[in-house]
Amino acid sequence: MARILYVLGGLLVVLACAESVPLLADLVSGNPDWMVFAVSGLLTLFLGMALLLANANHPERLTIREAYLLTAITWFILPIFGAVPFYFSAENIGITDAVFESVSGLTTTGSTVLTGLDNFPPGLLLWRSMLQWSGGIGIIVMGVAILPLLRVGGMQLMKTEASDTSDKVLPRAREIATGIGAVYAVLTLICAFAYGFAGMESFDAINHAMTTLATGGFSTHDDSFGYFTEPMLPWVAIVFMVLGALPFVLYVKAVRRGPMRLFNNAQVRFFLYFCISVVAVLTLWAWRTMPLSLFDAFSQSAFNAISIITTTGYANADYTLWGSASVVFLIITFAGGCSGSTAGSVKIFRYQLMLSFLKSQANRLIHPHGVFPVTYDSREVPSEIVLSVTAFLALYLVSWFGLSVALALTGLDFQTSVSAAATALTNVGPGLGPIVGPAGNFSGLPDIAKWMLAGGMLLGRLELFILFVLVTPRFWREL
Amino acid sequence: MARILYVLGGLLVVLACAESVPLLADLVSGNPDWMVFAVSGLLTLFLGMALLLANANHPERLTIREAYLLTAITWFILPIFGAVPFYFSAENIGITDAVFESVSGLTTTGSTVLTGLDNFPPGLLLWRSMLQWSGGIGIIVMGVAILPLLRVGGMQLMKTEASDTSDKVLPRAREIATGIGAVYAVLTLICAFAYGFAGMESFDAINHAMTTLATGGFSTHDDSFGYFTEPMLPWVAIVFMVLGALPFVLYVKAVRRGPMRLFNNAQVRFFLYFCISVVAVLTLWAWRTMPLSLFDAFSQSAFNAISIITTTGYANADYTLWGSASVVFLIITFAGGCSGSTAGSVKIFRYQLMLSFLKSQANRLIHPHGVFPVTYDSREVPSEIVLSVTAFLALYLVSWFGLSVALALTGLDFQTSVSAAATALTNVGPGLGPIVGPAGNFSGLPDIAKWMLAGGMLLGRLELFILFVLVTPRFWREL
Repeated sequence: MARILYVLGGLLVVLACAESVPLLADLVSGNPDWMVFAVSGLLTLFLGMALLLANANHPERLTIREAYLLTAITWFILPIFGAVPFYFSAENIGITDAVFESVSGLTTTGSTVLTGLDNFPPGLLLWRSMLQWSGGIGIIVMGVAILPLLRVGGMQLMKTEASDTSDKVLPRAREIATGIGAVYAVLTLICAFAYGFAGMESFDAINHAMTTLATGGFSTHDDSFGYFTEPMLPWVAIVFMVLGALPFVLYVKAVRRGPMRLFNNAQVRFFLYFCISVVAVLTLWAWRTMPLSLFDAFSQSAFNAISIITTTGYANADYTLWGSASVVFLIITFAGGCSGSTAGSVKIFRYQLMLSFLKSQANRLIHPHGVFPVTYDSREVPSEIVLSVTAFLALYLVSWFGLSVALALTGLDFQTSVSAAATALTNVGPGLGPIVGPAGNFSGLPDIAKWMLAGGMLLGRLELFILFVLVTPRFWREL
Repeated sequence: MARILYVLGGLLVVLACAESVPLLADLVSGNPDWMVFAVSGLLTLFLGMALLLANANHPERLTIREAYLLTAITWFILPIFGAVPFYFSAENIGITDAVFESVSGLTTTGSTVLTGLDNFPPGLLLWRSMLQWSGGIGIIVMGVAILPLLRVGGMQLMKTEASDTSDKVLPRAREIATGIGAVYAVLTLICAFAYGFAGMESFDAINHAMTTLATGGFSTHDDSFGYFTEPMLPWVAIVFMVLGALPFVLYVKAVRRGPMRLFNNAQVRFFLYFCISVVAVLTLWAWRTMPLSLFDAFSQSAFNAISIITTTGYANADYTLWGSASVVFLIITFAGGCSGSTAGSVKIFRYQLMLSFLKSQANRLIHPHGVFPVTYDSREVPSEIVLSVTAFLALYLVSWFGLSVALALTGLDFQTSVSAAATALTNVGPGLGPIVGPAGNFSGLPDIAKWMLAGGMLLGRLELFILFVLVTPRFWREL
């Protein structure tokens, strides 16, 4: 346990330091909320330092069981500390809403229960964006360094990819993490400049750059991206949402080996083809059924579809009103970006694996004695990994159904329950319908539903199995 | 091919003979539709005999590929011949509606596009019930004799069970088929007497007995089971719907070895526990949220939930109006009865297998080097079968999503598209909402949607993979 508490302490110290940014912003703009950040930051710093010092003599290595516990505990404790500034701010935010907003931020989901954002103090708005931004880098590091070790949901497939010893570009995990962090920061900076250049004010540009790269989707305005009328802004967002949904390890390689490394990757290619197909179908649908020019149909389809596929969750059109196409938006909620990115949801490589698996199964039905291996990126995939991925998908389904029923029993209608459960589990953000849809706000939900959805976000972000493992008797029996 | 055409010819002859029953019913009641059955019966008989005679010199054994083709062709050709009496009847039924009704009958789905059933001639009503009844026995035989050979969706697990050589009760497949047929007929007869005893008129009793044992759900009244007010009738239906959803092979064993054979079966026990749990939850919900006595809440929950779980599809209450509980009804649509029964949908044994699989996966995450076999009924299941089942579930999901989107693009709303796609694939019958819900009627759908749904019913009835295999290039390349 000492090692777990040590790491947790370190993360709390980082969180405390992060609070100095909104503190300064509020101090400069003369908002009294700076005291909230000061107190909350000092409290977090104190607790973090205490944990660091008390557990300095920790063992060097984590056991697998400790790695599970650490990951789960971290994702439960950090959102609580992240919620403190919301709760104590002058904005009169209750405990449920504070925790919901914090969980939605750190998991990069982007559903919000806050209204009147346009008049919020800058500190609190920055804090929301920073929660998503740190959640984003946390998820990339978790996806590259921890999930492959835990062999959750077929992530062990990515182990070979990240630590690809055949080309010894970056042999050590620490170097990879540093490289990824640098790429993440640089891309965010470029994105902020691009937003500014395309017409955003600098405060909005900084906030949106952080939530774009994190594929989070928090905005500084109630109308989300619909607030902005400058024609170039959605296109900047599209580019950086896509960049946020690609494997960050590849950027590090691309920096050393040239940008074609990105397109040589099977997952990236499949992801891009998928985006293009969905946008094409939606463009045609929107153009034929609504009074939109072809270009407007294309630009609205592209922005909103890419926003959902990358699990960002910005919206600049209420596609719930797009009639039947809203089913398409629900289904692409389950797509997700590439592994090792900031995106949530099922993720593209699992679909590639399942397609190859279904093909191999069909062939085996015709030729009972033939050998038809499942492949990924032209390499054979051991059946152990295929089983992992299918177990992941099965548990995804069970969780979705279970959460839908639980939400429905709180009194929500069919479309709201089903789509809110989906959007929470996949860390996308908006669902369908007037309440949880792109033009709605989660504040109208009953408190119990908000807690359920926050639980769903954590479940999805922890790739289901990390929490599922913790509730098996065997985990605790032999601890 | 000769062997395929020979079997098809035989089945057409059986269908032609079956048409003599509604022919006689219409003749006795003086309805001119008897001529339709006479002409359609003779035509079918002629074609069937022609196929039998022309292919008398067929080879004795089917190859696996021919078995796939035979199963698929049979399920495409028979519904066309089944549709002929509808199309040529005096009831003014179009080609789309005739085929939809016939497919819905033979697949034991039970969705109907016909209205004014209460005033229909007896011949056509009998024909609907007989289509479901023959579909029911067809499915049991397919599930016991053909699917295990084709190794579709983990059905090879049932191979060992049906041909259980350890107790040599019924060593030969032909004997099993005869035994099952006898049990099916006897149970239908008992059910008809029970309905009559509980207050149904004899014509209704015969029709409903056929569609109950087939877990089909066609009724002779527009109001389905809601037409009947006698308090005992729903309970008779519950008993025989459950009996129709149990493995028929077990009845044959139970006749020789005593009725406890039924409860010694893992699938049967799990199925019964599942039914009891769902009914308990729904009863509590209905009692707390609606102005119903506890007994009424129990009896309505029991009847409607068992009707959906067993994939029958009778309704005597519009549970679409049960608010949030309607999500529960959508989810139990995916339950299904036991393998080797007349029930459709995913079926209980697949869930049992997936539960054991998820447990074994969770254990492996904690103990990377431990051995945790997947078990079914206390026996170890080879990973090949686990892969089969997961592939089946994945394809189920893809088909459901695909069909939902296709239906939505015809202009249907979200709830109707999603629930109609589910109820067609699972061969249940009613969906949710005013159009396809328990109080609605599929006649209001656009023609193109009816064809899609009929396709979905066949896809589900053929356990997805039989059709999926047929569209792989490899199947045709090496034929």
